[in-house]
Order: sequence, then C-alpha cells, then structure tokens
Amino acid sequence: MDAEARRREIAEAVWRVVRRDGVPGASVRAVAREAGTSMGSLRHWFATQDDLLVFAMTLVQERARARVLAVVSAAGPDTTRGLRALEEVLPLDDERRAETEVWLALTARALVDPRLAALRDGSAEDLLALCALVLREPGALRPGLDPALEAERLYAVLDGLALHAATRPAALPADRAREVLAAHLGSLRDTR
Amino acid sequence: MDAEARRREIAEAVWRVVRRDGVPGASVRAVAREAGTSMGSLRHWFATQDDLLVFAMTLVQERARARVLAVVSAAGPDTTRGLRALEEVLPLDDERRAETEVWLALTARALVDPRLAALRDGSAEDLLALCALVLREPGALRPGLDPALEAERLYAVLDGLALHAATRPAALPADRAREVLAAHLGSLRDTR
Repeated sequence: MDAEARRREIAEAVWRVVRRDGVPGASVRAVAREAGTSMGSLRHWFATQDDLLVFAMTLVQERARARVLAVVSAAGPDTTRGLRALEEVLPLDDERRAETEVWLALTARALVDPRLAALRDGSAEDLLALCALVLREPGALRPGLDPALEAERLYAVLDGLALHAATRPAALPADRAREVLAAHLGSLRDTR
Repeated sequence: MDAEARRREIAEAVWRVVRRDGVPGASVRAVAREAGTSMGSLRHWFATQDDLLVFAMTLVQERARARVLAVVSAAGPDTTRGLRALEEVLPLDDERRAETEVWLALTARALVDPRLAALRDGSAEDLLALCALVLREPGALRPGLDPALEAERLYAVLDGLALHAATRPAALPADRAREVLAAHLGSLRDTR
C-alpha cells in the first residue's frame, strides 16, 4: 500500500474515533484498534496523545480548506458566497461539530505547547485571511468601514459563534448561529 | 482560622500558581506547596485536578462579577459604561489573561465532563445577560435592531476577542481588541 493510501486509512480511523468518542477518547490505543493495526505500526504517524491531536487538527484544516475552496472558487458575482464559505467552519452539523471540538482541544492545549501553538496560529491566519477575502467581495463592505478592523471583527464573530454553537447547542442551535452570522454580514453590506 | 479566611488563603495560593505556571502547572501538589500546607489538608477543597479547575473557575467568576458589578452599578447615564463593563472580561492585562486561560481550559475540559459543563453554562448565561444589559443602556441600540439577536452577536464578538487576545496576543494586542469591541458597540448605537 502506498504512503498516501495508508495515511488516508489512518486519518479515517482517527476521524471515526473522534466523532464517536470525542477528543479525549481518541487515544493512540483506540485509533490502533479502530484501524485494525498494532500500536507499534502507528508510531510512524504519532507516538503520543499530542502527536495524535496534531494529526487530527491537520485533518480538520485539510477538510475545512477543501470545503471553503469549493465555495469561494465558484466564478461570478454571488452575494451569498461569503456567508456560505464562513458557514463551512461553523459547527452546523455533526461533522463540523467534531472539527470544532478538535480545534477547541488544540487551542486549550496550545497554551502550554509551542508545537501545538504553531498549528493553532496557522489555522488562525487562514481564518483571518478568509474573513478578509469575504469582505473583499463586491458590495460586501460599505464605504467608510475599515477593512482590517472589520476582518478582525468578523473573525471574532465567527470564532465566538463556533465556540458557542459547539459548547451551548441548546442555547445557540445551528440555525440561530447561521442567522447571527448572516445578520453580521448584512450589517456591513453596501446597500446603495 | 475561620472557614472564610482559610478559603481566601487557598484561593490566593491557587491564583498565584495559575498566574505563574498556567492551568496545567496548577496541580494539587503545586498548590499545597504554594500554600505551605500538606496535600492531605487540601482534600477538603479539592481532591483532583478537575476539582481544582472548578475551584479556579469559581474564583474567576467571583473576581469578574465583582469588577463588572463595580462598573455597572454606578449611577447616571454614561455612554462608556457598557464598553468598560465588557472590557472587564477581556484578557487586557496579566490578571485577566490568567482568568481567560482558566475559562478556556474549563471550556475544553467541559466537552467531556458534565460537572464542568454546568459551571461553563452558568458563566455563559452570566455573560449573555451582561451583553443584553449593556444593550439596554439608553441609546445603546438603534431602533430596528433585534435585542436578542444583538445580544448573541455581541456575546460572540466578546468571546471571539477574548479567545484571540489570549491565544494570539501578538496578532491581536489588548489595545486592538478594545478598539474592535468599541467599534462594534459604536456600530449599534443610536446616533440620532
């Protein structure tokens, strides 16, 4: 089996375990069992729980990037494209909720682990750049608004909603999170 | 020594350890050493790392509530009061950064521990209520805006900025976080 196919197989096993048992349940042992392999043969991929978290977060980034790219690369003007691109990184279904939980676990662990911090910072830069891109769509930003400040503000709304929808789903259901995000983008729009 | 004085002494030891070594460094053993007492005598306060996190988060809530109350209980109209109240829960100095780190650690751990989730949910309700209160100040909300939606949106901005200022202080320094929050409140204000 080539390296890429092997990596995909391990990645799918990691993902099934994270979705089923959450980040704390995703031990190296659990992933080995899920992938039908030995712990020894997983050493190439990750030796520790933190290595596994790095692997899982890398998967989250790959998955989210691919979905966002599919939305933003469509040609032609489209006033809903920005909203749809940002929705790809909100926990609006079980898949994206699992991704948000991986991100949150990594963000907390990164406070004490510089290697995790680098991955978290890369993810933050991606998302801030996505917010800036969304605001550069024609008509997305009224004249007089500061693009850099608005990108930071949109990024705060996005991560705040992701955090709240993942941790308080009863108080902030998916539809409501989407509605708040849409209202925020609407408040910035050039409606002349 | 009475129970309240003893609790205050333990709380101060917990707080010094959290500020110095972060949440992961705040073990029961480290707190016992800091308080100049035995691990046995701390069993009354917390037996496990999660108990200690609950104790630390309870302290964070008490401290933040006291500061917010001092700001919001001042009499008379004051257009900067809402901003100043919300700034009390942003990581704009070392004290509040330590508080934000405790909150973030608890939020991540709460994904798998119902007892921690209850504490996190209580904190979330407090903050959402604070956002709603700030928007009820005279002139804080333009006619036509939906108060419940704007409270959720402000809460997302607040927690998003708290998360970013705590985890990316170089990318989002304290002054910039304050500026983005002020811009958000300004965008909602009734300027007639």
